[in-house]
Amino acid sequence: MSPAVFIEALQQELQLTQYGQYPPELYDPIRYIMSLGGKRMRPLMTLMSAYLFTDDWKKAVRPALAVEVFHNFTLMHDDIMDQAPLRRGQPTVHEKWNPNIAILSGDVMLVRAYELMLNVDADQLKPAMARFTQTAAEVCEGQQMDMNFETRWDVTEAEYIDMIRLKTSVLLGYALELGGLIGKADAESVAHLYEGGVNIGLGFQLKDDLLDVYGDPAKFGKQVGGDIIANKKTFLLIEALEQASGSVKEELTDWLNRSEFDKAEKVKAVTTIYDQLGIRQITEARINSYFAKGLKNFDQIKADAARKDFLIQFTQQLIERES
Amino acid sequence: MSPAVFIEALQQELQLTQYGQYPPELYDPIRYIMSLGGKRMRPLMTLMSAYLFTDDWKKAVRPALAVEVFHNFTLMHDDIMDQAPLRRGQPTVHEKWNPNIAILSGDVMLVRAYELMLNVDADQLKPAMARFTQTAAEVCEGQQMDMNFETRWDVTEAEYIDMIRLKTSVLLGYALELGGLIGKADAESVAHLYEGGVNIGLGFQLKDDLLDVYGDPAKFGKQVGGDIIANKKTFLLIEALEQASGSVKEELTDWLNRSEFDKAEKVKAVTTIYDQLGIRQITEARINSYFAKGLKNFDQIKADAARKDFLIQFTQQLIERES
Repeated sequence: MSPAVFIEALQQELQLTQYGQYPPELYDPIRYIMSLGGKRMRPLMTLMSAYLFTDDWKKAVRPALAVEVFHNFTLMHDDIMDQAPLRRGQPTVHEKWNPNIAILSGDVMLVRAYELMLNVDADQLKPAMARFTQTAAEVCEGQQMDMNFETRWDVTEAEYIDMIRLKTSVLLGYALELGGLIGKADAESVAHLYEGGVNIGLGFQLKDDLLDVYGDPAKFGKQVGGDIIANKKTFLLIEALEQASGSVKEELTDWLNRSEFDKAEKVKAVTTIYDQLGIRQITEARINSYFAKGLKNFDQIKADAARKDFLIQFTQQLIERES
Repeated sequence: MSPAVFIEALQQELQLTQYGQYPPELYDPIRYIMSLGGKRMRPLMTLMSAYLFTDDWKKAVRPALAVEVFHNFTLMHDDIMDQAPLRRGQPTVHEKWNPNIAILSGDVMLVRAYELMLNVDADQLKPAMARFTQTAAEVCEGQQMDMNFETRWDVTEAEYIDMIRLKTSVLLGYALELGGLIGKADAESVAHLYEGGVNIGLGFQLKDDLLDVYGDPAKFGKQVGGDIIANKKTFLLIEALEQASGSVKEELTDWLNRSEFDKAEKVKAVTTIYDQLGIRQITEARINSYFAKGLKNFDQIKADAARKDFLIQFTQQLIERES
């Protein structure tokens, strides 16, 4: 078995899936955002998780796609709220069409995600749906918290971790849990899959924050320092605000309050402050801790060792990514 | 049995239902819009429909509420798209809070509607969910068509009927169908419930269009002539544009093209044109035809005659409403 088999099964289903035809203003944006690509990390996790417990992992393909469609629905609506001009280097839906179309297309994407979920076997349908629903509400809660944080300067590390857990990590946890439910895994293994996914997700999001400052510009894909330029409240900034004192704190808040500045100069200055405070090491330690917890969760899953290795190797790739 | 029993059961469940707590910006708007009232027509229809087939109609209360929560989700998002300042005489969510909060609160309402649907018995869960999902997508399609019509002057009567069928009627049909599914009615009766609901819904929406022009100002509640002032493409206007010719057509299009006008004068002039063209009679005939079809659908339902009378009397009240 190779990851390519799962990727191919997903791609095939993505090609076949019909979101709807009329009116085109409603369905063209769905095809558009789904065509922009991405790592398809969440549905791949569902398939690998189902494969831990059953050879018939293909029955997880449509529910896995439900998770991907849901994820892209959140991107479409988040981009309106964040007034983001670009998504994966292409115009966002509300820019290419308009905000009303992005609202309504997003709504119908959420409905289509539920429709794809209906392909879960009858005996697992209710729990799979109930947990999907709980996760979906949590993702909305995380997005609202993220928006609330924009106008606050006293966000604590604990609040930040809670926000990224809801906004990002619970869906990774659910992607794995769903595979377990479909594969009819024992309840304990399902719980370990979920917890493992959440922990990997937390590490993953913190790594995102880290790469934005310390990534290799040749590999990162995005502009290094983008979060610093935009005063984005990342783990690094929140940690720095908590750690800094005296003249270092003054210098940091001075940079945060400037409305006009040279971008490269700000990135360099704030990075230097992070260096002085040891923020990189603190963040790396936290990332490693979440990844280690996640791998320990996976260790406790009761499944064939070779198949588990397969999931763990995939996770290692995620952990080691540079972009 | 009296309608008050159903209304009370619904009110009680409305009081008990928790949508969520944190962050408050996400859940306060849900409590707000649900508290604005309304006729609760859709969930009442679900309960009356379930009661046709089972004494245990109370198990339909939470799924009935799902339909009401879904309906209010569409109102919250439609109000953003239509830039509506008021809903049931109170500020809309995007006005009272802001558009981002209205988008995200609406999203989580749709999720909560699905959560309430999970209370359908396991053996009916999949069909109930599948039809809910299809209906939800159709409601979005109707809203997109309605928005598309705003900038078109060649909307045909057939297109208009198709739009209101999707935007409004299919959800009334589903509200009745859901009661039938929960009551484990025979497939034919379920189909008659759905068709009957759709037909009553079509008559209901056309009556809305009619009352906006010919309603009794003392009973109507809204400003009579509001649709005329706003150039809203109603059945009456589309019919008038199709029927008018020569100088009457010129006068009508002249009123539609004026950017400045005396409101009372425009309402009077356009109403006079409608009178000349017999639009009131055409519309009334169509309304009566849909209501008659709906009642004929109900006639074919296989259920206890007294209980059917109960549903039919409720429908008659809807038909005869003046506001």
